[in-house]
Amino acid sequence: MVTSFFTCKKTISCFAIAALLAGGTTAPSLAAAPKEKPAAVEAIAQQTLSTVEVVATGYTAGYESTGKRPGHPQYGITYSGVKVRRGQVSTVAADTKLFPIGTLLYIPGYGYGVVADTGSAIKGHKLDLYFETIKDVYKQWGKRTVEVQVLRKGSGKLSQTWLNQINRAVEAGKPIPQTYLES
Amino acid sequence: MVTSFFTCKKTISCFAIAALLAGGTTAPSLAAAPKEKPAAVEAIAQQTLSTVEVVATGYTAGYESTGKRPGHPQYGITYSGVKVRRGQVSTVAADTKLFPIGTLLYIPGYGYGVVADTGSAIKGHKLDLYFETIKDVYKQWGKRTVEVQVLRKGSGKLSQTWLNQINRAVEAGKPIPQTYLES
Repeated sequence: MVTSFFTCKKTISCFAIAALLAGGTTAPSLAAAPKEKPAAVEAIAQQTLSTVEVVATGYTAGYESTGKRPGHPQYGITYSGVKVRRGQVSTVAADTKLFPIGTLLYIPGYGYGVVADTGSAIKGHKLDLYFETIKDVYKQWGKRTVEVQVLRKGSGKLSQTWLNQINRAVEAGKPIPQTYLES
Repeated sequence: MVTSFFTCKKTISCFAIAALLAGGTTAPSLAAAPKEKPAAVEAIAQQTLSTVEVVATGYTAGYESTGKRPGHPQYGITYSGVKVRRGQVSTVAADTKLFPIGTLLYIPGYGYGVVADTGSAIKGHKLDLYFETIKDVYKQWGKRTVEVQVLRKGSGKLSQTWLNQINRAVEAGKPIPQTYLES
């Protein structure tokens, strides 16, 4: 199910535009784009036609993403014909039913993207963002801040036998058996 | 600077333990681990020694992460000597000054991890989570839900000239010149 292209949802851009229309001076919330300067955020907001929530992943021109290796005649060439690019305006892949080729987006945490590519798994509200290397995807997009829970402090050693045993002992979604926390 | 290993921070586990100690019945907040069932979350909380905030990325045994290819004698072998594993208890890489080898963690969104590996970039409050393939890293860890702003609806076509021009015209952090939104 594809949402209407120009539906304005309750996001920073709509709030900013509404505030401007109302002559208000309230600064827009920066929650959606914490790294941008307020002036730039407001300027982009003024240019915004609509906002759409998507799930975004990263990809490269490489074999793991495209099935093509350097030397392949279509290596690094998007569906639109232009070369992949990571720049001020980068190439991204989308479902062209939602975002036709040539659509210009601003993607928080990534920057400007122009829809230039497609992908078999990129259907509906999904985006694939181009990065030059796999490491760039890992480091620039595939990063999460999480609170990890420490269940057992390590001794500095680990054996294959223990690892195999604990894997057999733990059932999906269940706690670690107490004996493994004490051993 | 490395935080003390057993400092209990203000997280779900501490709240749950505090509630249990107080004989309270208040369910712990599920904000930190939205996918887990409350019973499992509470059981893990009871086993928790401490919680630590880290920035977690994904990695594989492959060349892009380890510099080793299949066939290398150390391919798929962690610093601890055990083989990489994605299972009920997976192998993860950490700074052993913070988390000694053999430390057992529960990582929201990933599952149980045992510290088995290290990495030159994994210093301090960082974790590298093992996945079997690059695609798994992209799809299972490198995913973000974002609100994208649509600045221009595409016509279905994109030219290399236009993409080059717009990249030259846009300065870092600045809005797209209006002429490119109308063309």
